[in-house]
Amino acid sequence: MTDTTRLNGYAIVAQSGGPTAAINATLSGVIRGAFDNYEYVRGIYGARYGISGVINDDLVKITKLSDKEHFLLESTPSSALGSCRLKLPDPDGDDVDIYEKIFSVFAKYNIRYFYYIGGNDSMDTVAKLSVYAQKIDYSIKLMGVPKTIDNDLMGTDHTPGFGSAAKYVATTMQEIARDCTVYTVKAVTIVEIMGRDAGWLTAAAGLPRLFGERTADLIYLPEVPFDADLFIEKIKELQKIRPDIVVAVSEGIKNANGKYVSEGTSSDAVDIFGHKYIAGAARALEQLVKEKIGCKVRAVELNLPQRCAAHLQSKTDIDESVLIGKKAVDYSLTAENMQGLLSVFRRLPDVNYQVKIQTAFVRDIANKVSSVPLKYIEKDGTNVTDELLEYILPLIQGEINIPTENGLPVHFEF
Amino acid sequence: MTDTTRLNGYAIVAQSGGPTAAINATLSGVIRGAFDNYEYVRGIYGARYGISGVINDDLVKITKLSDKEHFLLESTPSSALGSCRLKLPDPDGDDVDIYEKIFSVFAKYNIRYFYYIGGNDSMDTVAKLSVYAQKIDYSIKLMGVPKTIDNDLMGTDHTPGFGSAAKYVATTMQEIARDCTVYTVKAVTIVEIMGRDAGWLTAAAGLPRLFGERTADLIYLPEVPFDADLFIEKIKELQKIRPDIVVAVSEGIKNANGKYVSEGTSSDAVDIFGHKYIAGAARALEQLVKEKIGCKVRAVELNLPQRCAAHLQSKTDIDESVLIGKKAVDYSLTAENMQGLLSVFRRLPDVNYQVKIQTAFVRDIANKVSSVPLKYIEKDGTNVTDELLEYILPLIQGEINIPTENGLPVHFEF
Repeated sequence: MTDTTRLNGYAIVAQSGGPTAAINATLSGVIRGAFDNYEYVRGIYGARYGISGVINDDLVKITKLSDKEHFLLESTPSSALGSCRLKLPDPDGDDVDIYEKIFSVFAKYNIRYFYYIGGNDSMDTVAKLSVYAQKIDYSIKLMGVPKTIDNDLMGTDHTPGFGSAAKYVATTMQEIARDCTVYTVKAVTIVEIMGRDAGWLTAAAGLPRLFGERTADLIYLPEVPFDADLFIEKIKELQKIRPDIVVAVSEGIKNANGKYVSEGTSSDAVDIFGHKYIAGAARALEQLVKEKIGCKVRAVELNLPQRCAAHLQSKTDIDESVLIGKKAVDYSLTAENMQGLLSVFRRLPDVNYQVKIQTAFVRDIANKVSSVPLKYIEKDGTNVTDELLEYILPLIQGEINIPTENGLPVHFEF
Repeated sequence: MTDTTRLNGYAIVAQSGGPTAAINATLSGVIRGAFDNYEYVRGIYGARYGISGVINDDLVKITKLSDKEHFLLESTPSSALGSCRLKLPDPDGDDVDIYEKIFSVFAKYNIRYFYYIGGNDSMDTVAKLSVYAQKIDYSIKLMGVPKTIDNDLMGTDHTPGFGSAAKYVATTMQEIARDCTVYTVKAVTIVEIMGRDAGWLTAAAGLPRLFGERTADLIYLPEVPFDADLFIEKIKELQKIRPDIVVAVSEGIKNANGKYVSEGTSSDAVDIFGHKYIAGAARALEQLVKEKIGCKVRAVELNLPQRCAAHLQSKTDIDESVLIGKKAVDYSLTAENMQGLLSVFRRLPDVNYQVKIQTAFVRDIANKVSSVPLKYIEKDGTNVTDELLEYILPLIQGEINIPTENGLPVHFEF
């Protein structure tokens, strides 16, 4: 085994999985980290469209950015380098052509550092690359850097990108709930929020209530079975008090039999990671309310803006997202082994919110899902506890005046 | 006929129709105007839930607000006084009970000024009240103050509320289009925008293109028939150049036979003004693309946030919305007749954007729709012209740092 610390060579950074409003902030942090460590990291390339950019030798040489450019990049949503959803084959199997291609590109450019910004599927890629690198004895530091609006990554207090998405959901829910107050006719508004397997983002819908503001009256997470009878009963009960009822539901809520509530309205298609394509939990509940109560009802899907509404970034999230990218580079220099690592947040047990950035092994995190613990969900499954909201609250703090020109955001492009 | 100028008495202000992100700014302006003219307007009441609040004698006495309270009110979305969708009967018909009720409340509180903030349906209410007032010779100044995100009111250059909605649509479209760039697989994203009969708001989706930014490749307004074959042809053509195609469609697009494109997916329900309830133009096109092209396709409805996302207000819109409310009070004092008037914007023919506030008769505006002129739509109906975008552009200028606490907006309540 070659020496594993402070390798001399070039770096590649890439982005993978669904974009977020903060994934470019992490990219900005990695770039800052690379240029701060130029004695070892002699240059940094961006791979276009995730690991595909390495496979296809589609790299962009990243030059030192000005502070203004960093700020622009940090307030640009989506993945500036592009993304992919590519699952690598088993590195111990026979089908290693793709690894040979990847490592030939690594060798061609003398790549000794690889930073992959992504969710749990992307950590799978880092873990597999690290197995293959050890197998062929190629000296490279492989680092995962987390991102996902779903906040469903194990081993970290929370994920970069979640805070901005949560701020978007909470703000929009407060605005929608206020919009719904204007009429005196009975109406139910059902808002569908992203989060296939974990309800963290849906839970954020409850935040305004901590400050006495109107928001969702009922909040349904995918962690507990959805009870249709109790749902109708609860709405009828609430309608005795006020005409405007607002409900937040995760796209992934399931019935007691384990089937998605949206099943009737969705296709059976699966994505390449085997995730079932689902849509329409709110539409399914809209039908249910129409049928069982017969009042006015509206389904609203928050949809893509949840992950790309950079105009409503959380300053805390963006600051942390930059820092975790920068720290990933620092850790990659000092890490004593070649196994894939991931930079993670640990929340300090202080009264005031504070986080520390540490590392974890990607193999312990890849392909796992961190669900909302049941203690954070009301016993009857129709809302979340204040404790859960207080866990999320620090992550949405602070506003960023994003750069604008002509009344529109200015976005960064490589 | 009694003397009609500078009546001494009290005022009522009310809000009607769908809420907007700027309707409270106009309310704030009316309140400012009333307190500025205290020699004549001896006090001002807010009617809760539009004209219903007068009918039900559900009034709130409005006290002088501090500057901070005015700012809070102006950055609060939705209708702070509540709203209604109530159509008054013919004032010349037999069914005048409701008018008797309204004017008895006017008399009870010595109401001599009435300000109704609303869209074309609300102007119908002002016009009818003015007919009835003349009939019973009750001295009152009845003023309409426009609002609608649809921008479909006759007699005014544009409507308060439209600029903020247009800024939301343009910003969100730019963010969505950027989100869509990240993958290399062919995908069509179809975004549905509000505007039943007029395509002004949908057109705003094109604004980012004026500055070389990605946004919708195709823009469909309800003013011209939707051609499904050409739509598919256009997408196939665009897919030769890039994998990510973004389409903006108005909820109200119709086929050549005059049927809503969404007809298959919507109910036949109508609201009390006889408007057909429609939903799902984007879903209908999603099915079409799936069938005819078979690539990845996603329907996104921007939905309620278009009208309530106050966190993305246009400063120009808010400033103008306050001013048109304030001016409505000024005009009501000096108007020489009792016929219902409306304050409107006239755009001055300068190079730099400038508006003047004037008055028009509500009877000339009520129940009419201002559509997008055909000269502003590309001949083949698949996009809008730059001239249309340049008409909209000044209305989205300027940002407002809305008041926040704990990472969330602070909203005003009476």
